[in-house]
Amino acid sequence: MTSRSQSPLTRKLLAFVALSEAELGVLERLHQRRRTFAAGRDMVNQGQSDQAAYILSAGWVCSYKLQADGTRQIVDFQVPGDFLGLRSVLLRTSDHSFEPIVTIEAAEVLKADLLAAFEETPRLATAILWAASRDEAMVVEHLVGIGRRDAHARMAHFLLELGSRLALVGIGDKDGYACPLTQYHLADALGLSAIHVNRVLRKSREAGLMSFREGRVSYGDREKLVEIAGFDPAYLDHTGPLLK
Amino acid sequence: MTSRSQSPLTRKLLAFVALSEAELGVLERLHQRRRTFAAGRDMVNQGQSDQAAYILSAGWVCSYKLQADGTRQIVDFQVPGDFLGLRSVLLRTSDHSFEPIVTIEAAEVLKADLLAAFEETPRLATAILWAASRDEAMVVEHLVGIGRRDAHARMAHFLLELGSRLALVGIGDKDGYACPLTQYHLADALGLSAIHVNRVLRKSREAGLMSFREGRVSYGDREKLVEIAGFDPAYLDHTGPLLK
Repeated sequence: MTSRSQSPLTRKLLAFVALSEAELGVLERLHQRRRTFAAGRDMVNQGQSDQAAYILSAGWVCSYKLQADGTRQIVDFQVPGDFLGLRSVLLRTSDHSFEPIVTIEAAEVLKADLLAAFEETPRLATAILWAASRDEAMVVEHLVGIGRRDAHARMAHFLLELGSRLALVGIGDKDGYACPLTQYHLADALGLSAIHVNRVLRKSREAGLMSFREGRVSYGDREKLVEIAGFDPAYLDHTGPLLK
Repeated sequence: MTSRSQSPLTRKLLAFVALSEAELGVLERLHQRRRTFAAGRDMVNQGQSDQAAYILSAGWVCSYKLQADGTRQIVDFQVPGDFLGLRSVLLRTSDHSFEPIVTIEAAEVLKADLLAAFEETPRLATAILWAASRDEAMVVEHLVGIGRRDAHARMAHFLLELGSRLALVGIGDKDGYACPLTQYHLADALGLSAIHVNRVLRKSREAGLMSFREGRVSYGDREKLVEIAGFDPAYLDHTGPLLK
């Protein structure tokens, strides 16, 4: 039930491009097929073909890949304003699975709708390419995190990134944000064991850096946290419209 | 000195979209500003702003992020037909650095050129979004590799991926491909030590799976290699044009 100017995707894209009334109208049309998905049941499965994409308007989703041995690597979490499965539409076969973490609201976008929107307004295509580039930059950060950051820096970087992403679509505040993730989600995303996640979070809390309890991430000393993480939010590209 | 139909990027995009003569013309215009870069000197630096993007037409490049402690995580390698720094153009600040591994030829693409091309032909924007989605799918595979695959599967997956990517632009053959990477490159990409890389390659060679010597990757038993890697090339999306 978001009005045009309040859709999280619109809000996010406006950070990149100043969209005209006509372009906002096309974007609104992409939001028409509203659907609700229950937590815990995959929306898109790895290897499935002919998928739709979704624009997430409320709730959190995790995207992951299962390995043959049953282990799971979480690639990223999607928050309101994010596309789900844009690659599934463009690459024909989905390269990973999506599972809602809570009940979510999302608009289904068929391939034909997306291509028609691009034909009608190339600036929207550029804006969506921007959003896809930003998504890729986040996956790169997760790669660097797993490859090169110790557990504390990795966790701090990850939770700061989530906070910045949510802030862009108007969720959370300077003290923290509501977060439905479990320690198992964090473990599968960060390549740590659940026990290790627990220990890292406890140490952060005891050091007064941040706490993650009862579904909320609260910053204690955000500046210090940024320093530990080496967090430079430039890759999230939030500095106002590039295309006028 | 590639003719229109032979440009590696054109060849790659044609796997996704059947481009018209007019669209091929726009794509050719993007190749106008030809430049040569020497090996070992960064073309784009992490944190730099107002960058151009490049279309690589010959040679190999590595893209990486440096951490504050001086360690390097290689995110990916670029081969002919790949964009370099598409994110640098769209995200204003480059989130990583590019270094040519050998002398390379590349066409410089200014932000304005790219946006003008998108305005003129939205199908080209869609095709480039496809290429960006494919790049992201590769970074996802590298994330899964570092997070979840053992050293042998990781190496096998990585070298099979490179072979498939090169085959799409007409480089290499069914027995293998020329590869200018050193064991240090492989180590920084795969999150292994150079010694570990050396051992993994030796074991693969001794088992008759593949060899990587004197700048060439040669498959011994490609089928077995695919099995060890769990390599499913669907994410590279090479099955012929989706958009007619």
